[in-house]
Amino acid sequence: MSDYRGYSGKSLEYLKNNNINIGESVKIFADITYSGIIMPRYEHSDDKHLVLKLKSGYNIGLGLEKIKKIEKENSDKKKIEHKVEYKKKISLPKILLLSTGGTIASKVDYRTGAVTPILTAEELNSSVPELAEIANIDAEVLFSEYSENIMPEHWLKIANKLNEYCKSNYSGIIIAHGTDTMHYTSSFLSFALSGYPIPIALVGSQRSSDRASSDAALNLIGATRFLLGCKTNGVYVVMHQDKNDETVACHFGTRVRKNHTSKRGAFQTIGDVPAFIVINDEIKRNNLKNFFKKKEYEAKINLKTNVALVKYHPGYDPNLLEKILEMNYQAIIFEGTGLGHIGKAMYEKVKKAGKRGIFLGMTSQCVEGRVRMTVYESGRDLLNLGITPLEDMIPEVALVKAMWALGNSNSVDEVKKIMLENIASEISN
Amino acid sequence: MSDYRGYSGKSLEYLKNNNINIGESVKIFADITYSGIIMPRYEHSDDKHLVLKLKSGYNIGLGLEKIKKIEKENSDKKKIEHKVEYKKKISLPKILLLSTGGTIASKVDYRTGAVTPILTAEELNSSVPELAEIANIDAEVLFSEYSENIMPEHWLKIANKLNEYCKSNYSGIIIAHGTDTMHYTSSFLSFALSGYPIPIALVGSQRSSDRASSDAALNLIGATRFLLGCKTNGVYVVMHQDKNDETVACHFGTRVRKNHTSKRGAFQTIGDVPAFIVINDEIKRNNLKNFFKKKEYEAKINLKTNVALVKYHPGYDPNLLEKILEMNYQAIIFEGTGLGHIGKAMYEKVKKAGKRGIFLGMTSQCVEGRVRMTVYESGRDLLNLGITPLEDMIPEVALVKAMWALGNSNSVDEVKKIMLENIASEISN
Repeated sequence: MSDYRGYSGKSLEYLKNNNINIGESVKIFADITYSGIIMPRYEHSDDKHLVLKLKSGYNIGLGLEKIKKIEKENSDKKKIEHKVEYKKKISLPKILLLSTGGTIASKVDYRTGAVTPILTAEELNSSVPELAEIANIDAEVLFSEYSENIMPEHWLKIANKLNEYCKSNYSGIIIAHGTDTMHYTSSFLSFALSGYPIPIALVGSQRSSDRASSDAALNLIGATRFLLGCKTNGVYVVMHQDKNDETVACHFGTRVRKNHTSKRGAFQTIGDVPAFIVINDEIKRNNLKNFFKKKEYEAKINLKTNVALVKYHPGYDPNLLEKILEMNYQAIIFEGTGLGHIGKAMYEKVKKAGKRGIFLGMTSQCVEGRVRMTVYESGRDLLNLGITPLEDMIPEVALVKAMWALGNSNSVDEVKKIMLENIASEISN
Repeated sequence: MSDYRGYSGKSLEYLKNNNINIGESVKIFADITYSGIIMPRYEHSDDKHLVLKLKSGYNIGLGLEKIKKIEKENSDKKKIEHKVEYKKKISLPKILLLSTGGTIASKVDYRTGAVTPILTAEELNSSVPELAEIANIDAEVLFSEYSENIMPEHWLKIANKLNEYCKSNYSGIIIAHGTDTMHYTSSFLSFALSGYPIPIALVGSQRSSDRASSDAALNLIGATRFLLGCKTNGVYVVMHQDKNDETVACHFGTRVRKNHTSKRGAFQTIGDVPAFIVINDEIKRNNLKNFFKKKEYEAKINLKTNVALVKYHPGYDPNLLEKILEMNYQAIIFEGTGLGHIGKAMYEKVKKAGKRGIFLGMTSQCVEGRVRMTVYESGRDLLNLGITPLEDMIPEVALVKAMWALGNSNSVDEVKKIMLENIASEISN
């Protein structure tokens, strides 16, 4: 049966003339020679490109005018069957994939074009057949949410599910997650499950698998290789790195941020280098610091959400802080300016908050670098008002940590103590 | 008269043995040969370093153990006198320096050690004598505030003062400003004074001039050279660039952010390259795009501050948005996730805000990259609720622009129109 989904005009004609269907393995001779599988396209794409999934799992678009020749390789169907056999080999290590939604946890139905969640290990294997060569994957769908709809209650669900598997025979666990709020979730898991015995990788994709230049398969394969080869534990965000089509970066779960709205190398480790780098099947420990202070597993899966993130700016109305006090928030994380400052117009309300026993923490909207509140008079004033400088903790991470600290303590002093304790490399040395 | 302020122990002994005072020009032979002026030190510094101000204006600390030999060059006093003569030369172009506070607008009194504002052109010339060689500087103190205390009313003061000089015979204007909120001020000036006939440079220093590795003089000299040589107009932030000790970057006033709490190269152009680079006395146009759309000067020095910046995160309580509505804000700038999303729990309040005629704009907390709200269902929902995607405007810049737009319009439709019009390169092409 022929299948040309998304192809039209010249590109459709080209495929037909060469008797090549979607899903077939081909060799394309252009500026260099590409080997891979012909992928389906969007309905409304232009008609001048073929989309090819390379062996690394990376999708590229190739302009027809650059293609000198196209040749079939082995039949793809045969290849998939071959891999399903691999999956059954009990000699391969086991990986658990928990799916929470997002592009990464979806597949495109080639017939209908709809994006649907991956529900079974079999579906996953046929979606990313390369995985079956390196691990036996068990897949489980926890829920299916875009990441902007993932709430603290979802973090609890994920953490509780992971806790169930803390004594399993898995070598590692992948959490498929939308990219937008992935670093909030990875922070919570880092704190709630510190010392978890096996490594956990949150994996997303910046571009969906039906698009040219999708990083979905690449990231899944990279994360699996990382989990099998890293020989350590901890929570990581594993995403495509920008430099080439083969590199995947494994970021500390508490030091990572989505720093670009759309490009594939959007995730970056803040103020440090990624923990590990995966290039094809090679896993390199990239950060030689002694990370993750807590080595023994202790699940503390609690939180309280009444933490406010206050980004200070010129013209910030102190009455808004008053409203926050009225709403009975128990902690405020300031995103101050520079080394950790807010204007003196805020002092009166800050003082009031401190007197009420609200935890007050300072981070910087600069994102990179450490707050230092002893350098200038303003900083010293704020220290006197009871604000705790949170070193070089990323504002979003400080927010999540404060929610978790509130859920695991009985007094503001305990919260303060927890906030300053380096639990999962959220503070750099 | 001898002067060894801040030197003690071995470093003091070394200076005395070589008969060299603070303020003298010397040549130091170490790994390479350094020429510069011996600077005073902090009271409590270690006694193993000399601080040398290089000709570029950059201060360095040199370990005694590395110094092979020290030699006097010309007497510094003579040099300063020489420069005062230069200053009087009417052939030199004129630069106006408006001082608003911050480290850059201060000098260290060598006798008392106190940091005091620079009040006159004479003081400035003796503080950074190199300036008198390239321009006649008139200095004026507008006010003296740490930048976290600079408020929208200060922006108005600066803009009105600049407007007074719009038909002067200055070649350019320097605004000395604390670094923390410099990019908020530069944004306001970019909008309020678009098309201003001569270039404006906001200059700060990440480290004060009494410290080894201060960038104060370097930035002032670089800014002066830039203003004299750039042959264009617009508002720029001119700050030390990290790569070496000689390079100063001139960032667009609406595309710059302080991205590090403490390091000297903290200021970065977001999503683009700096407009100009100054290396010693060479000025290079670094960004070849056709920037600054409005070429004719039109002062619009108005604003309203009732704009809220709402940074969305998992667990953001929609009731906080309700409080913002109660406070009669007229515009809300969302810092959404990824391509410009907020969770569906927020929809009801967003809808309410839209119905009240509040301007709702979307930016991304990723900082880099463009919002695109047509890619995912969530984005399309938010568009239907009346949120306006603000392209790749930096959240802080969108906040300032909304304040300015409110001050210069009578309806939400006008605000929306202004927000989407590219006035001062705040939106990339």
